[in-house]
Amino acid sequence: MISISSGFDGGNISVKDATNPAHISLEIVKDNQSDFFQWFYFRVTGAKKTACHFRLENAGSAAYPQGWNDYRAVASYDREKWFRVPTLYKNGVLIINHTPENDQIYYAYFAPYSMERHADFIAHISQRSGVSLNVIGQTLDGLDMDLLTIGNEFGGTKKHQIWVTARQHPGETMAQWWTEGFLDRITDPADPVARKLLSKAVVHIVPNMNPDGSRRGHLRTNAAGVNLNREWDKASEKNSPEVFCVLNKMRETGVNMALDVHGDEALPYNFIAGAEGVPGFTEKDQTILDAYLDALKLASPDFQTQYGYPKNPPGSANLGICTNGIAHMFGCLAMTLEMPFKDTVETPDRIFGWSPARCKKMGAANLDAMLGVIDLIG
Amino acid sequence: MISISSGFDGGNISVKDATNPAHISLEIVKDNQSDFFQWFYFRVTGAKKTACHFRLENAGSAAYPQGWNDYRAVASYDREKWFRVPTLYKNGVLIINHTPENDQIYYAYFAPYSMERHADFIAHISQRSGVSLNVIGQTLDGLDMDLLTIGNEFGGTKKHQIWVTARQHPGETMAQWWTEGFLDRITDPADPVARKLLSKAVVHIVPNMNPDGSRRGHLRTNAAGVNLNREWDKASEKNSPEVFCVLNKMRETGVNMALDVHGDEALPYNFIAGAEGVPGFTEKDQTILDAYLDALKLASPDFQTQYGYPKNPPGSANLGICTNGIAHMFGCLAMTLEMPFKDTVETPDRIFGWSPARCKKMGAANLDAMLGVIDLIG
Amino acid sequence: MISISSGFDGGNISVKDATNPAHISLEIVKDNQSDFFQWFYFRVTGAKKTACHFRLENAGSAAYPQGWNDYRAVASYDREKWFRVPTLYKNGVLIINHTPENDQIYYAYFAPYSMERHADFIAHISQRSGVSLNVIGQTLDGLDMDLLTIGNEFGGTKKHQIWVTARQHPGETMAQWWTEGFLDRITDPADPVARKLLSKAVVHIVPNMNPDGSRRGHLRTNAAGVNLNREWDKASEKNSPEVFCVLNKMRETGVNMALDVHGDEALPYNFIAGAEGVPGFTEKDQTILDAYLDALKLASPDFQTQYGYPKNPPGSANLGICTNGIAHMFGCLAMTLEMPFKDTVETPDRIFGWSPARCKKMGAANLDAMLGVIDLIG
Amino acid sequence: MISISSGFDGGNISVKDATNPAHISLEIVKDNQSDFFQWFYFRVTGAKKTACHFRLENAGSAAYPQGWNDYRAVASYDREKWFRVPTLYKNGVLIINHTPENDQIYYAYFAPYSMERHADFIAHISQRSGVSLNVIGQTLDGLDMDLLTIGNEFGGTKKHQIWVTARQHPGETMAQWWTEGFLDRITDPADPVARKLLSKAVVHIVPNMNPDGSRRGHLRTNAAGVNLNREWDKASEKNSPEVFCVLNKMRETGVNMALDVHGDEALPYNFIAGAEGVPGFTEKDQTILDAYLDALKLASPDFQTQYGYPKNPPGSANLGICTNGIAHMFGCLAMTLEMPFKDTVETPDRIFGWSPARCKKMGAANLDAMLGVIDLIG
Repeated sequence: MISISSGFDGGNISVKDATNPAHISLEIVKDNQSDFFQWFYFRVTGAKKTACHFRLENAGSAAYPQGWNDYRAVASYDREKWFRVPTLYKNGVLIINHTPENDQIYYAYFAPYSMERHADFIAHISQRSGVSLNVIGQTLDGLDMDLLTIGNEFGGTKKHQIWVTARQHPGETMAQWWTEGFLDRITDPADPVARKLLSKAVVHIVPNMNPDGSRRGHLRTNAAGVNLNREWDKASEKNSPEVFCVLNKMRETGVNMALDVHGDEALPYNFIAGAEGVPGFTEKDQTILDAYLDALKLASPDFQTQYGYPKNPPGSANLGICTNGIAHMFGCLAMTLEMPFKDTVETPDRIFGWSPARCKKMGAANLDAMLGVIDLIG
Repeated sequence: MISISSGFDGGNISVKDATNPAHISLEIVKDNQSDFFQWFYFRVTGAKKTACHFRLENAGSAAYPQGWNDYRAVASYDREKWFRVPTLYKNGVLIINHTPENDQIYYAYFAPYSMERHADFIAHISQRSGVSLNVIGQTLDGLDMDLLTIGNEFGGTKKHQIWVTARQHPGETMAQWWTEGFLDRITDPADPVARKLLSKAVVHIVPNMNPDGSRRGHLRTNAAGVNLNREWDKASEKNSPEVFCVLNKMRETGVNMALDVHGDEALPYNFIAGAEGVPGFTEKDQTILDAYLDALKLASPDFQTQYGYPKNPPGSANLGICTNGIAHMFGCLAMTLEMPFKDTVETPDRIFGWSPARCKKMGAANLDAMLGVIDLIG
Repeated sequence: MISISSGFDGGNISVKDATNPAHISLEIVKDNQSDFFQWFYFRVTGAKKTACHFRLENAGSAAYPQGWNDYRAVASYDREKWFRVPTLYKNGVLIINHTPENDQIYYAYFAPYSMERHADFIAHISQRSGVSLNVIGQTLDGLDMDLLTIGNEFGGTKKHQIWVTARQHPGETMAQWWTEGFLDRITDPADPVARKLLSKAVVHIVPNMNPDGSRRGHLRTNAAGVNLNREWDKASEKNSPEVFCVLNKMRETGVNMALDVHGDEALPYNFIAGAEGVPGFTEKDQTILDAYLDALKLASPDFQTQYGYPKNPPGSANLGICTNGIAHMFGCLAMTLEMPFKDTVETPDRIFGWSPARCKKMGAANLDAMLGVIDLIG
Repeated sequence: MISISSGFDGGNISVKDATNPAHISLEIVKDNQSDFFQWFYFRVTGAKKTACHFRLENAGSAAYPQGWNDYRAVASYDREKWFRVPTLYKNGVLIINHTPENDQIYYAYFAPYSMERHADFIAHISQRSGVSLNVIGQTLDGLDMDLLTIGNEFGGTKKHQIWVTARQHPGETMAQWWTEGFLDRITDPADPVARKLLSKAVVHIVPNMNPDGSRRGHLRTNAAGVNLNREWDKASEKNSPEVFCVLNKMRETGVNMALDVHGDEALPYNFIAGAEGVPGFTEKDQTILDAYLDALKLASPDFQTQYGYPKNPPGSANLGICTNGIAHMFGCLAMTLEMPFKDTVETPDRIFGWSPARCKKMGAANLDAMLGVIDLIG
């Protein structure tokens, strides 16, 4: 008998009817106190060798329905290897057609990243040389906000302060996979790019900006239904303590370069959005931004600059968005990196699509780009 | 600044006052809808190189205060290696005296075992040859009850049905560590004991009888505050669906041998309690039980038969207890294996005490004992 | 084009004609200065998807032609997993019929064990707590004779001295695989059997008695063509320095129990040969030997006592054989453990036959047997 | 008692007198039929906690005595981690002053790379998707010459042919460590640089050009004492079959880019020597070479262009050298990459110096450089 469940970290599904494998009716659950939904993650047992037809009935009302076009869900038997499965979006329903080969299988919107993995990775990486770990606040659900700092101030010369924030939107797990690649490389004592960058900069990174939403299986918001990436001009301990504590710490260290890491539901590309719409954005700001884009393009053919968000007209930027808020507050290079839920159009991978392994490579490649512009900034 | 938290799978602590490292005042939180408490598990950050004095103020009112005598808490920097730290029980307060060497450290009653680890291990082991996985029910919190079955009926000869249940009491994590050693060995195609046992028996194992309590950081009860090991004569979908679904499945397969795996707060020994108090317990039952004890003693010098629980007088057994209930229902060998929270008196380990690694060895050794009696039963 | 080579550690083959895959003519090379031969180990490239018919033309003149009956050669693509391939012995020729799936494949008489692996394993295991490493001599080719000693004399009580020697015959690589299982377990601080045994005994082990023959790809002899297992009553620095240096060290420590580990070409069983034919072999000696056999049978269903070598009549033993020589010299329990090149008849493995993984289990099981008799010996 | 040996793959030492730890007299052994020597690699046992003073008495007559200035030997307990130890060059003697902490330790000129490791790595990497393996010849000692080819010709478009050769000089083990980093990246299906490069090129790599010298513990020559890197204009089956078979294969595929990987005894830098001295070297050749250097400098701060060999005057190049010979024969970009035995001056590592881990990074970085120029060539 088929059993479907989501009672685990990041799980999200509501089962309407699972009696007939040929017509399994499911719904994605909304974020708490919010209308956002699109993230799903569920476990299926008892369906070995059974042709299943999973229908996500409310997909058409999800936050970004255009995200379903040409999208394929991910699945895993071993919770390590997540491969793509045949998926169809039709009449507002997302349909996954798949015949599991084993007693159990998991399906998700993108390869999940649990808070236990977060805790394990923090434990692992924070023991490497040159890394310090601080809890800078707590979420509304009482979870720790972890900040890792790599590198030190030595010999009196003030180094550049680079800040990286990831996974403000908890359903964008690719953002946290990215941090593994980034952190693994920047703490590698044999990597010459990491070593040179750390001779010039200190790197602060918050690998998970939204632990509550992550654990709850949210798409976009924290425990109170707040979209953190609209709070950077009004962060409060009550609504958005996650942003509030990070801003406090940023003010303490200063910020010379900031990167906020995300996933995009609709666009099948890796791209960067800058802070062009922020009041006072200068030509020099543009030069540095362009240099970053060029360096990243060189380091990673998975990155491109042709497709992306339309630029905000000068002065029109929403300062509640992290990148704009920080650019405005600190007058520094600030960027939003977006990775696809789907795959890259130019460099597709038929089996895995955009994947954790590729996210990590993108994370590692950003070190090249940071080093590429470090001598241009402030 | 010191930060103490328990916002993670299995976490349990309430912080009263953490302002002064020399006098950190904490309390263990009760199981939901229950007065049981003794399991603790918390994370400390910001205390590197700081002499800390953690006081569990309500330890004296815990379920088994005699468990605190000669007890030492476990700690870990990397969440993998859990070592013992200086601990003192005085005037009803349990005091952990420790100076962390790193930015973060975890303390716990025993090495924790999270539901994510459970899911990962299930995913891993269920892919081995000869293993099948079934979800046989769901908990009150909506978590899956996982049953693994190893071995098959072949060639018409009916094999013996062995049932193993573990971690009815969620704070007794050693019971689940034990299952890793047991499962790893019984699925090892190169192990001659496993192969011979599986030529004569099918093994059913529920590695975690109490997922809700495990995730909630409970000591003894499920989400509704029910002690599952008093429910085997009255299991209901409402109060104890965990036991209810297992009993259903047991009735389906029959049971020829049953082992229920636990931890004991007070006794510093590994020992087995039989079903001597069950009505109709025969001399032959005693013979088989004794054979099991002898075989296990031979296979593992960590096991002994001198110390343990007093035996129930004939006919006086509480049939709500798993071992008694099953012995009574199925007329078979049924046993409760207890492992210490502390350490073994005869074979102590100064650094780790009783540990996950030693639990696994005990799990593996039980295969020898099972094979030792398999020709005596049923 | 098919290429066949043996230019590596332990390699042994002579290519007569490899032009036609359907009739590849090969010969096994004799041990240096000796007529012994049976070990083969070669690499084949350029035969992907090609049906190959390898003929070992001189198999009929090998040391133990009865070894070829019901024998299947091992093969490996990755040098880690060695599986069995279809093999036929007919008219004095051993024929391997196989179609490689990859660009390269290795074939051998049994899973090889190189001197580099030896060095890596010695480096690994000698760093564990309680292990000491000594080079006690050098071979004729100038290779080190490594002795590992596990455990210490403590508190004035003299412990029993257990000696293990393995791979006197270099082609019997199963003997060295055995030592990995034995050493891995005896140095495991969580293993209660190992801990108890080491509380009563010190274990000395020579994992490779014949480095020269191993590296040269010999079946039975050292660099000078000497069969070391006929030298224990006449060991000399000139002909058998390997035995000479071990005997010197044995005299220094004394010997209370000795196990010499081998492989047998013909018999498809694990069995032990005792020193019954040694002058002065007593009833008590027989009792201890029987206890060891019983304990090992219990610990490992892969071991049996029904089949084996015929016993030497009293007083007729060849004292040049290690087991007899030591039993005679030290008046102690001494045994020869034999493992099959083929497979075990009672507990066969269709895919791998007798294998490195199973050798390791047998090595681990001997700890149970040693502990089982330790209180019986002198 | 101290024991010193070199009876293993790549070992090289002659012990003159090891009786007094404070004055251990050693000599490096010459390459067979050659006067070259500088590579050493030996094992020391029995010196735990003993201050040792190893004197390489004939260091002053080694091939590159200037290599000893500011040089520090490497040592390892576990044969995996090779760290630097205090070393002094004085009066023509190289003196290693070290107190081993364990029962055994190995010392070497650079981290060794054995033929067994070669075979294991070939087995591992050749099973990855898109890799093919061919044995293209055999050495004078009868060892296989392994060629790996990565990528395929698809869809009728002829791709560029890139050739990489490494370790012509067997004592320059860094060259083979380099190939692990290069191969690991180019076969990584998640790496966008590798994927893009393979869409335009096929890569042929010989990870070890000199198996005989490697196994024999030579510095510069093959089994016959021939320096392979002087044979590219006169390779013969008799003297230099290693070069002979590679050239044959190169003529078959053509060559559009060639990289020959080496280590330099004296210069503490990573640098590249081009084929400027070859007759007919054009301005365009210079442009492409410069582009490669720039791209590599960008990808790896461990690489530099300030220090290196003086350039050959036009037309004066020795065409027996691989880089010159190939540039001349195929009219393509050909380069010699040199890595230090010592360390890099600009980016030193106090503990490990130039190391296997850093060699691998350099190998990986060369992919960026190859991709950087691929559209400029032929």
